[in-house]
Amino acid sequence: MYDYERIDDLQVAGLKIIQDTRGFCYGLDAVLLADFAKSASSHATLDLCSGNGIVALLLAGKTETAKIIGLEIQTGAVHMAQRSIALNGLKGRVEMVCGDVKNAVQLFDKASFDAVTCNPPYMPGGCGLLNGTDAKAVARHEILCTLEDIVVAANQLLSPGGKLFIVHRPQRLVDLLTLMREYHIEPKRLRMVHPTAQKRANLVLVEGARQGGRELKMLPPLYVHDKNGAYTEEIHQIYGWGR
Amino acid sequence: MYDYERIDDLQVAGLKIIQDTRGFCYGLDAVLLADFAKSASSHATLDLCSGNGIVALLLAGKTETAKIIGLEIQTGAVHMAQRSIALNGLKGRVEMVCGDVKNAVQLFDKASFDAVTCNPPYMPGGCGLLNGTDAKAVARHEILCTLEDIVVAANQLLSPGGKLFIVHRPQRLVDLLTLMREYHIEPKRLRMVHPTAQKRANLVLVEGARQGGRELKMLPPLYVHDKNGAYTEEIHQIYGWGR
Repeated sequence: MYDYERIDDLQVAGLKIIQDTRGFCYGLDAVLLADFAKSASSHATLDLCSGNGIVALLLAGKTETAKIIGLEIQTGAVHMAQRSIALNGLKGRVEMVCGDVKNAVQLFDKASFDAVTCNPPYMPGGCGLLNGTDAKAVARHEILCTLEDIVVAANQLLSPGGKLFIVHRPQRLVDLLTLMREYHIEPKRLRMVHPTAQKRANLVLVEGARQGGRELKMLPPLYVHDKNGAYTEEIHQIYGWGR
Repeated sequence: MYDYERIDDLQVAGLKIIQDTRGFCYGLDAVLLADFAKSASSHATLDLCSGNGIVALLLAGKTETAKIIGLEIQTGAVHMAQRSIALNGLKGRVEMVCGDVKNAVQLFDKASFDAVTCNPPYMPGGCGLLNGTDAKAVARHEILCTLEDIVVAANQLLSPGGKLFIVHRPQRLVDLLTLMREYHIEPKRLRMVHPTAQKRANLVLVEGARQGGRELKMLPPLYVHDKNGAYTEEIHQIYGWGR
């Protein structure tokens, strides 16, 4: 442990995570993604843009998946995630690989995963003000990988019928759905996440199936807060908070 | 008037519509589409798949648009809509044209509309049980035109920056958004319509701009009923019902 790190309790199966307080700490989106993806009965899951490993760790706690691999390009995050894996006694079942999404097909066998998850950078890249070495910027902006890189990798690495689970901003919904169809990962389930029932959605969860048929199932909306500002019952359940 | 017809009050600017009680009568989707499209400051609006002219008539009541043309392939519906136009004293401002969406570019000048609206058939075509001459089936299934035909026509007939307003089922959202982008009508605003806040969306309203930039604005959801089953305040306002 370094003095800039802290250990957070994930409230799921006794799991903990080491986070860098100077860098990018996980948010609601990662928690919702892991919960959304837990329905997949997967033998091998690959988490792209894995960061500090939050989605991989949560999936270890929420599913029976035999092998969960997190791919992350930033070495500092990979090392921290590896220590979180050891801390939780998950070595062997959860593994971090340091590498580039754009080279994922060189790192793993083709069609070798039945689920891919990704909580990607939301903001389009190419902004001149960005510092490409800053961990927060890399987590938020498409500096080191684009949405297209992610969908291309998922298409190469998923088995036929395998599932991609992704969380994104609704502003990018057209990009996301068109790229998924273009690269043969047909969007099958979509869930909008709203801060409250009265507010516009600010996150979208999408599940696609490689080579799936064309029909999207819209799921009921997910509301984070009720009208009094308290977390909703569903958020309590997802986070594993006792009542 | 025929004995199978009835006159309904549109509750907007004193407008009425003649409907064929044996055929396809307008629903919530047409009313929501017209309200969604009223924001466009349009000189000339084209309503595709215009049917009995409901969207064209509502737009006449809700906007200052100088010229509103409804294009409809079924002659019976066109004649009925023309009588509704006369009944409302809207001849000259609202006009029905009998023709095929697939030939729309032969019927109208290219890029001559600044708004196009469409409440299309929702169900994919090609179902063997369908009777191609049945007005209800034509209104519901892609028998005489597909979603692609509609988006192609909109791209040809809209001026640069002109707006397409369309209502559809969420199951077809991927088809809709990918076709719009493919034919250069970038989705700009999206609104989900839910029967209640607790239920999944069953309609989606999308506004696209011809040659628009890539960024989707998600609007707050529209709920039709409150938790007690009563229409929401917004539905009352859209329908023009007094309280």
